[in-house]
Amino acid sequence: MKRLDWNALDPAAQLQALARPAQSRAEELRRGVEAIVAKVRAEGDTALRELSAKYDRCAIDAIEVTVEEFAAAEAALAPELKAAIEEAAARIAAFHRESAPRPVAVETAPGVRVERVLRPIAKVGLYVPAGSAPLPSTALMLGVPAGLAGCREVVLCSPARADGRCDEAVLYAARVTGVHRVFKLGGAQAIAAMAYGTGSVPRCDKLFGPGNAWVTEAKLQVSGDPDGAAIDMPAGPSEVLVIADGKADPEFVAADLLSQAEHGPDSQVILLSPSDALLDRVAVEVERQCAALPRASIATQALAQSRLILVDSLAQAVAVSNRYAPEHLILQVTEPRALLDGIDSAGSIFLGAWTPESVGDYCSGSNHVLPTYGYARSYSGVSVASFQKQITVQELSADGLRAIGPCTATLAEAEQLEAHRRAVTLRLAALEARA
Amino acid sequence: MKRLDWNALDPAAQLQALARPAQSRAEELRRGVEAIVAKVRAEGDTALRELSAKYDRCAIDAIEVTVEEFAAAEAALAPELKAAIEEAAARIAAFHRESAPRPVAVETAPGVRVERVLRPIAKVGLYVPAGSAPLPSTALMLGVPAGLAGCREVVLCSPARADGRCDEAVLYAARVTGVHRVFKLGGAQAIAAMAYGTGSVPRCDKLFGPGNAWVTEAKLQVSGDPDGAAIDMPAGPSEVLVIADGKADPEFVAADLLSQAEHGPDSQVILLSPSDALLDRVAVEVERQCAALPRASIATQALAQSRLILVDSLAQAVAVSNRYAPEHLILQVTEPRALLDGIDSAGSIFLGAWTPESVGDYCSGSNHVLPTYGYARSYSGVSVASFQKQITVQELSADGLRAIGPCTATLAEAEQLEAHRRAVTLRLAALEARA
Repeated sequence: MKRLDWNALDPAAQLQALARPAQSRAEELRRGVEAIVAKVRAEGDTALRELSAKYDRCAIDAIEVTVEEFAAAEAALAPELKAAIEEAAARIAAFHRESAPRPVAVETAPGVRVERVLRPIAKVGLYVPAGSAPLPSTALMLGVPAGLAGCREVVLCSPARADGRCDEAVLYAARVTGVHRVFKLGGAQAIAAMAYGTGSVPRCDKLFGPGNAWVTEAKLQVSGDPDGAAIDMPAGPSEVLVIADGKADPEFVAADLLSQAEHGPDSQVILLSPSDALLDRVAVEVERQCAALPRASIATQALAQSRLILVDSLAQAVAVSNRYAPEHLILQVTEPRALLDGIDSAGSIFLGAWTPESVGDYCSGSNHVLPTYGYARSYSGVSVASFQKQITVQELSADGLRAIGPCTATLAEAEQLEAHRRAVTLRLAALEARA
Repeated sequence: MKRLDWNALDPAAQLQALARPAQSRAEELRRGVEAIVAKVRAEGDTALRELSAKYDRCAIDAIEVTVEEFAAAEAALAPELKAAIEEAAARIAAFHRESAPRPVAVETAPGVRVERVLRPIAKVGLYVPAGSAPLPSTALMLGVPAGLAGCREVVLCSPARADGRCDEAVLYAARVTGVHRVFKLGGAQAIAAMAYGTGSVPRCDKLFGPGNAWVTEAKLQVSGDPDGAAIDMPAGPSEVLVIADGKADPEFVAADLLSQAEHGPDSQVILLSPSDALLDRVAVEVERQCAALPRASIATQALAQSRLILVDSLAQAVAVSNRYAPEHLILQVTEPRALLDGIDSAGSIFLGAWTPESVGDYCSGSNHVLPTYGYARSYSGVSVASFQKQITVQELSADGLRAIGPCTATLAEAEQLEAHRRAVTLRLAALEARA
């Protein structure tokens, strides 16, 4: 792990210390994804079968998961895992229900009622990757808010294994959250199928979920096309930033850093501390714990580019964290709430010694689909609002129009929009004629 | 105006009846904007001056509006217009304040506290077009929620007139809403300047506002670049759909149709009614009122491709409207609230005879930056939430971890993420050792 002293770095080196792995939309990637999208649009299900054989190395006969496959998945699953999926879903639902937007009604002037009503996005597509391992938790994180929003058609795509089946836990999580249809599709072809529709896959209005560079590029392409679909957010590799003081338990800090590092070789892991001694101890602990992990080789690659950074104070740690805008931010300090107000940008925050990041990944109730790669500066994680539209409604009585009509007419005149003005003044004249 | 009978059309003709003008991202437009963006990134302010001279046909010496220019604008403005700007700002603030997201805190299990906190997006860029006329109302619609969200730096770009000055009402509206800095810039170059920063223009995290095809293309390009900026939404030409019953006043309906048609030759105007007689009367009224408009030639072009469509019922009108997903939806029917629950997709809705669309454009309190071009199926209009990030926070006590730790460990094991599991189990072991 790279050891740095923030205050010994010049501005360029500080920039470098917080640099993320390059994610430029390489021309090759762009063209590759364009070709896949075009092929799916032109050939539909035929293209999906061909691309699945090529990229997921699996032969799928029926693209859609059948009732029998759902039943077989449920029968095959350990009762303990089924119970954990249900428990997590219930807690995710509890938090997401409470934080869902509410309808609003305001009288902004006498006789002028302005409201906000909520409507589900009708058809949504969820993407659950299955790169190195199945991710039932992602099915929960997308399926629960889609269900709470009341989306009419919830479609989920996840690549099949080599045996042509989807992971049993993913199917069970989809079933528990009320996902309507699941398709054995992965990569850019899954995104294209949900954005444009094929014979089997319905066309969706908005697409959600993490994925690799191909999936992310496909999401960007379809979201830039008026005939495509909206997306939740751009995405990059997962990342964590930990702020720890001298009293933090190095064993806990190391475990949190490693639980991020095991995600993939391009995962980002940063520790900021004003305590040199803690940095020393964490470095030792990370090495010790890492050696015992089944995914030690992945974690080691991620750690090779990770950083332990000495700062002069917790306040400086907060400033550096805000500059980085981490997806996950862990505050392993004695008084984490004292730092919270100073945090400008992060996807999700974990306070204190007993809140490992993994509880947020699975079942504290918050969402784990979060902005990565600095997008936390401007994006929020997925929530019920992501699956809804907020529509404004206004209703004026005759008195309401009398109250705000003149203001409207004055502004319309300033903008040289005479028909806008007249839509008001001819009504006011009609009211006067009737009076 | 084209007259159609919905139930006499075959599916292809129905599709055609609701088709919008083509907005494909033509290769030529894309390349042109790419060149402008690249030039601004490479040459900064020099490029901005050159491009302003070329595209806005104005020579700007200082790019930023000065204190003196603000003062001169305020002095030049009619008191009645200043008062209208202030009145509109107050009403927009009243509705936006009430509909802003609230912090949330939920105990999802004993000892498991999950919260949502709100943070402003630090630096935001507002774009106010000035194509055929100045748009102070757009400065209000963007500046008010930015101010309520508490954004640290609010930047506004609007093209200068040929005399090198910005419109006085736009400057006054910017001042009233607390915009921090205004730059005399338009088009793709304004978007590039705010996304990447130049010597004069600060780099912004998120960009907002309507614009022409060049502005829209530039927003799409910078939002697809991790080094660029987020955007509010894609945009197309403005549009209205009116549902009117046989009792609607044809004079009012015609005035509303025209107030949309005068926006631009590519504006969309659709009227749905189950009453043949009303369609007749509106057609006559539109022609009569249009002739008296200063922008009659623009409105006439828009009307040439607009449609009066006979439907068999109000229920069918709602179904057709949902399929179109209009930016503005006017319900000029006797009982508009009876239709409201059936509306799935619209940007903003106007109920009854005394609610012309123009009140929403200026001062009912709702926002007029709304999803066009069918994006109302998946996007919402601008609100305070558009200028904020929602960050989740979790804090577990030792008991909290005991409560949800086992569920976390089970799910981590199912996903083969052993370090995630151990981050929990080694804490639980430490708790047991201490007990």
